[in-house]
Amino acid sequence: MSQPVLAISRRTRSTPYSNRVSECGVKGYTVYNRTLLSTQFRESAEADYWHLREFVQIWDVTCERQVQLQGPDAAKLAQLMTPRNLQKAVVGQGVYAPIVNQDGGMLNDPIILKLAEDKFWLSIADSDLLLWAKGLAYGMNLNVDVTEPDVFPLAVQGPKADDVVAKVFGEQVRDIRFFRFEELEFQGVKMPVARSGWSKQGGFEIYLTDFSLGEALWDALWDAGKEFNIGPGNPNLIERIEGGLFSYGNDFTTENNPLECGLDQYCHLDGGFDFIGKEALLKIREEGVKRRIRGLVIDGELKTACSGLWPVEVDGKFAGNVTSACYSPALKNNIANGMIEIDFCETGQSVTVQTPDGPRQAKICDLPFEVPEL
Amino acid sequence: MSQPVLAISRRTRSTPYSNRVSECGVKGYTVYNRTLLSTQFRESAEADYWHLREFVQIWDVTCERQVQLQGPDAAKLAQLMTPRNLQKAVVGQGVYAPIVNQDGGMLNDPIILKLAEDKFWLSIADSDLLLWAKGLAYGMNLNVDVTEPDVFPLAVQGPKADDVVAKVFGEQVRDIRFFRFEELEFQGVKMPVARSGWSKQGGFEIYLTDFSLGEALWDALWDAGKEFNIGPGNPNLIERIEGGLFSYGNDFTTENNPLECGLDQYCHLDGGFDFIGKEALLKIREEGVKRRIRGLVIDGELKTACSGLWPVEVDGKFAGNVTSACYSPALKNNIANGMIEIDFCETGQSVTVQTPDGPRQAKICDLPFEVPEL
Repeated sequence: MSQPVLAISRRTRSTPYSNRVSECGVKGYTVYNRTLLSTQFRESAEADYWHLREFVQIWDVTCERQVQLQGPDAAKLAQLMTPRNLQKAVVGQGVYAPIVNQDGGMLNDPIILKLAEDKFWLSIADSDLLLWAKGLAYGMNLNVDVTEPDVFPLAVQGPKADDVVAKVFGEQVRDIRFFRFEELEFQGVKMPVARSGWSKQGGFEIYLTDFSLGEALWDALWDAGKEFNIGPGNPNLIERIEGGLFSYGNDFTTENNPLECGLDQYCHLDGGFDFIGKEALLKIREEGVKRRIRGLVIDGELKTACSGLWPVEVDGKFAGNVTSACYSPALKNNIANGMIEIDFCETGQSVTVQTPDGPRQAKICDLPFEVPEL
Repeated sequence: MSQPVLAISRRTRSTPYSNRVSECGVKGYTVYNRTLLSTQFRESAEADYWHLREFVQIWDVTCERQVQLQGPDAAKLAQLMTPRNLQKAVVGQGVYAPIVNQDGGMLNDPIILKLAEDKFWLSIADSDLLLWAKGLAYGMNLNVDVTEPDVFPLAVQGPKADDVVAKVFGEQVRDIRFFRFEELEFQGVKMPVARSGWSKQGGFEIYLTDFSLGEALWDALWDAGKEFNIGPGNPNLIERIEGGLFSYGNDFTTENNPLECGLDQYCHLDGGFDFIGKEALLKIREEGVKRRIRGLVIDGELKTACSGLWPVEVDGKFAGNVTSACYSPALKNNIANGMIEIDFCETGQSVTVQTPDGPRQAKICDLPFEVPEL
């Protein structure tokens, strides 16, 4: 039986790059922030993975929508929304920031780009954070405009990314530090170019601000990348699990707090500033978390992709859930992320994972996985 | 070239009925409210359409997520969120309600179910209205819990729906009036059963409140429906355009206000109550709307599905956009919804539609289309 296709409509927003993605022979899609996101181009996710690790890829990540906060209270609202201390962030910096509600539940985990003292972009994961920010701004009567601007991120990822982006935007891109950005010009239009991206292979995210330039930008990067064997790509399940990158909606949801998501380092509960959910997180910290994101190495063969929670058990007792899993070609083993109950999350703990292919023995391990270099 | 498949993960939430949908040979999916929604089962949307009009279908509409408002300020918050007067709504009633932001822009268009004087479910279209409601409640310091409860709507639609649902829930369902609901029992669990649904063929939406009963409920309806030729289905593009049902995200977005969306009758601007966006809507009404949702009948053959805006022109001048289109087997013509500039939206106006298959002549017409009975 053939797999169901994705039905595309105006509601599953197409992007400035959608024609190019289609011309490249996209094999799979998902919908992310109500926007098309490709999931596969080659014969397998593993083929996409090796190309990403060896060469360089161009990714349509328009689905990373921006929530723009602008105005006198923009900095105040941004700080209210996250336990991460934003006071030291400088213009030209992006900071990864958990966003929590009043119960400490994760609402999103964007990168917050500081464009000016009174202007921020929250480059979001898959939830309409725009509506939370707008609701807060309205309800608290803050003097800030909360909008979704016309911004269409395009990522260039892989070991040859510097060479490709330098040919299009100039040699100065090599000096952009990790999670910093500069406003650079393409065909006379300025746009933030950041050293960031949802892989561990290095690269850039280009925040295109003019829809009509999309294909020209794609083509310019493509032409520049030919000598480096550039190809199409997208966030890759294998590479991101190997690299310890978490996916909102997969590895955690609003049911989880950032302390159990291993985001302690981004929760500055003693930073002397207020934010929504502070009281809840202080209480959780005091009582101790009940579960934690952990790595798993799973024995045996996994024929079925992980498309939902896989229960984890110890001696028949509930011990958590696997949230994402894949076969790692680099580690020659099945690897996974899981939300594991605190009593069973020690490194080396033996567990049973109830997969759609039957029970599998597994061991808890630290994240990120130790991936050998090529 | 084969069409891209939908990649399914935990993030594209599966439902209590997903196994059954899969077993029925689903051919297409979309993602709606971050939840799987099937789009086709038979060889074509037209085959699905005829089955829906002649017999009865069971639809997994879990993607109609519920935003629950509960507590002393629940009614106050619900009314703040919509220009529709909710004061006269009674327990057991559902009301279709545009939700707007402070600029009058459409955020969603749910059915609001009144479960108790202090408890409402907003059965939402495709946006995280939960976050808007939660942001408002927090910011305005309202005494209300805003949550997404475990509710998994299943629809039974088509001319034989009454017969099927009566066999499972009892004869009293025949007396449920349009947009009313009763809490009825299935296997000892009470759940709202409403006469409603996203088709014009009549039927019910069953708000299952226990995930674990999903397949039993599906199977009970399926068995009851065998004598009526029941089959799987989903909201059908052709049937809903013929019937004048609008789709949030397709026919309008937050860029549109309810007055241009033809929702005037649900905007009680002189109702003597306050709501967010009242000032903006009063101003829009005073100045007159700049565009309006209208029907179009389009000449010629349309080979390409409408997956984005199709520009509408009069003498080469911008006159709006087609937002949804299909071939209507009942009307033997191409029919469409469009957001048409006010100068060109008279019935009978000739326009040119720029489709992916080239320009097509079209005429503006009234909605809903006049569909002959079978």
